Amino acid sequence: MNKFDYRVPYADTDNMGVVYYANYLIYFERGRTELLRQIGYTYKEMEEKGLYFPIRNVECNYHSPAHYDDMITIETTLSEIRSASVVFHYVIKCQDKLLVTGMTKHPLVDYSFKPTRLPQDLKDMLEQHLEVIEK
Amino acid sequence: MNKFDYRVPYADTDNMGVVYYANYLIYFERGRTELLRQIGYTYKEMEEKGLYFPIRNVECNYHSPAHYDDMITIETTLSEIRSASVVFHYVIKCQDKLLVTGMTKHPLVDYSFKPTRLPQDLKDMLEQHLEVIEK
Amino acid sequence: MNKFDYRVPYADTDNMGVVYYANYLIYFERGRTELLRQIGYTYKEMEEKGLYFPIRNVECNYHSPAHYDDMITIETTLSEIRSASVVFHYVIKCQDKLLVTGMTKHPLVDYSFKPTRLPQDLKDMLEQHLEVIEK
Amino acid sequence: MNKFDYRVPYADTDNMGVVYYANYLIYFERGRTELLRQIGYTYKEMEEKGLYFPIRNVECNYHSPAHYDDMITIETTLSEIRSASVVFHYVIKCQDKLLVTGMTKHPLVDYSFKPTRLPQDLKDMLEQHLEVIEK
Repeated sequence: MNKFDYRVPYADTDNMGVVYYANYLIYFERGRTELLRQIGYTYKEMEEKGLYFPIRNVECNYHSPAHYDDMITIETTLSEIRSASVVFHYVIKCQDKLLVTGMTKHPLVDYSFKPTRLPQDLKDMLEQHLEVIEK
Repeated sequence: MNKFDYRVPYADTDNMGVVYYANYLIYFERGRTELLRQIGYTYKEMEEKGLYFPIRNVECNYHSPAHYDDMITIETTLSEIRSASVVFHYVIKCQDKLLVTGMTKHPLVDYSFKPTRLPQDLKDMLEQHLEVIEK
Repeated sequence: MNKFDYRVPYADTDNMGVVYYANYLIYFERGRTELLRQIGYTYKEMEEKGLYFPIRNVECNYHSPAHYDDMITIETTLSEIRSASVVFHYVIKCQDKLLVTGMTKHPLVDYSFKPTRLPQDLKDMLEQHLEVIEK
Repeated sequence: MNKFDYRVPYADTDNMGVVYYANYLIYFERGRTELLRQIGYTYKEMEEKGLYFPIRNVECNYHSPAHYDDMITIETTLSEIRSASVVFHYVIKCQDKLLVTGMTKHPLVDYSFKPTRLPQDLKDMLEQHLEVIEK
C-alpha cells in the first residue's frame, strides 16, 4: 500500500466550493503511479517497454468533500493481478476523515491497444505487493 | 433522453493519444446539464433555489477511446427518481461506435450539504422524463 | 475571423464561483481549431502531415469573469503569418460583455519539435484569412 | 522566492506527449500559494478575511516542454506590490533545464470583486519578500 500526500489547488475546486468530482480520478492516477514507483518499476518505464495500463472500469464513491488547500492523503492498494489485467483500490482521506473510495480495473495492452501479458519479472514484483480487499 | 454533441479538444487528450479517463466525467456533467435544460429546469436555476445535486457514486466503463477532434455524442437518461436522490445513465458514442457507458447517483442537498427533498413541481417534471434502464 | 459558442460547464468553475483562469487557454485552443476548420484545413490534418503548432508565448487579459452555464463566444483571428510562425488573437465575450482578450504565438515544428516551414498551399490559404490587429 | 517541486501526472499531458500549455498556469498557482504560505499568511486565510487575488494579466513563455513523470520545480517570486495590486514572476525548470517563464498580475478585491486594499500588516510581510525582477 502506498500513501501519497497532495495539496488541493484552487484549480481543482468548483462553483460549490469543493473539489470537482472528476478530479478524484486524477488523484487515483497519482496514487497508482506512486505505488508502482514504490514497488520498483515506474509506469513510465513500463510504457518504454511497450506495456500500457489503460482503464476499463472505474468506481468512485464520494463520502465527504475536499476543499481548497486541504492536504489529502491517497492510499492506494494493488488488489488483484491476473495475467491480462490488474485492479487498484483507493481510499482518500483528509487527516482522519474519509473523503472518497474507489477502484480502477486495467487491461494490459501494447501501444496499439492490443491485449498483452505481464512480463514474469514484473508479475513477481507486483505479487509481493498484492493486498486482497474485503468487500 | 438527451443527445449532446461535443468536439474533443487537444486539452482532453493525454500522452497515449486518447481522451484522459477522468474527462468522461466532465462529459457526463455536460450530458445531465443538457438533459435538465431539455426537461425545462436548468441546474443553474435549481442552485438558485437552493437545490444541489452533488455526486455520491460514479461508475464508468471504457469500451473504446475517443481521440482529438472526434465529434462524440453523449446520450443521457434520467433512470431513477427517489425523494432524496436521482440517478443518471450515460452512453458516449463516436458516430455508431460505443466508447463509454456510465452512471452517476446524486443525493439532493442544500448549500450546506444537508439532505433536502425534490420540490413536487420539479419531481413531476422529472418523472415525465424517467426511463428505466434494463441491467 | 471565427466565432465559436461554448457553454461553461461546472468543471471549469472554481471556488470563487467563476471560470478558473487557466481554462481560457483551452477556450483559445477551441477557437483556433475552429478557425482552421473554417479555413479548410483542420489542425488534425496538419498533424497527420507532420506539421505541429506548439505554443511559444501566451498573453491573456481578464476583464470580467465567466460563470457556470454562461454561453460564451470565442472570436479568433489569425493576425500574423511568418515562414516559421503564426499568431492568433482572441476575444471572449458573453453576449456583448467583454470577458477576456488574448494572444498565442506558435512556432511551426515537426513531431520531433524541430522547426519546419508552412507548405505553400497552406500558407496561401491562411493568408486569405489574415487580419492585422491594431495594437 | 519559493521553490516547489511537482511531479507531472498523465492527466497533465496531451496528444503530443508533453504537458498541455494551460496546465502551466495551474503550476503558477501552486507556486504563488506556496510562496504565500512561506511568507506566513496563506491565501486561504486571506480569503477568509475577505481578500481575493483574482488574475488580471498572464504572460507565459514556453522554452522547452515538460513530460509525463518529470519532477519539475516552480520558482515563484513576488516582484511588485502596489496598494491595490501585486505581481508574481515564475520560472519552471526540470533539473537545470529551463521549461517555462511567466508572470501574473493580480488586483486586490473583495468577494464581490470590488477593489480593496492590502491590510498594512500583510503589506509589511509581503514587502519583506519583494524581489525586483530585471527585465
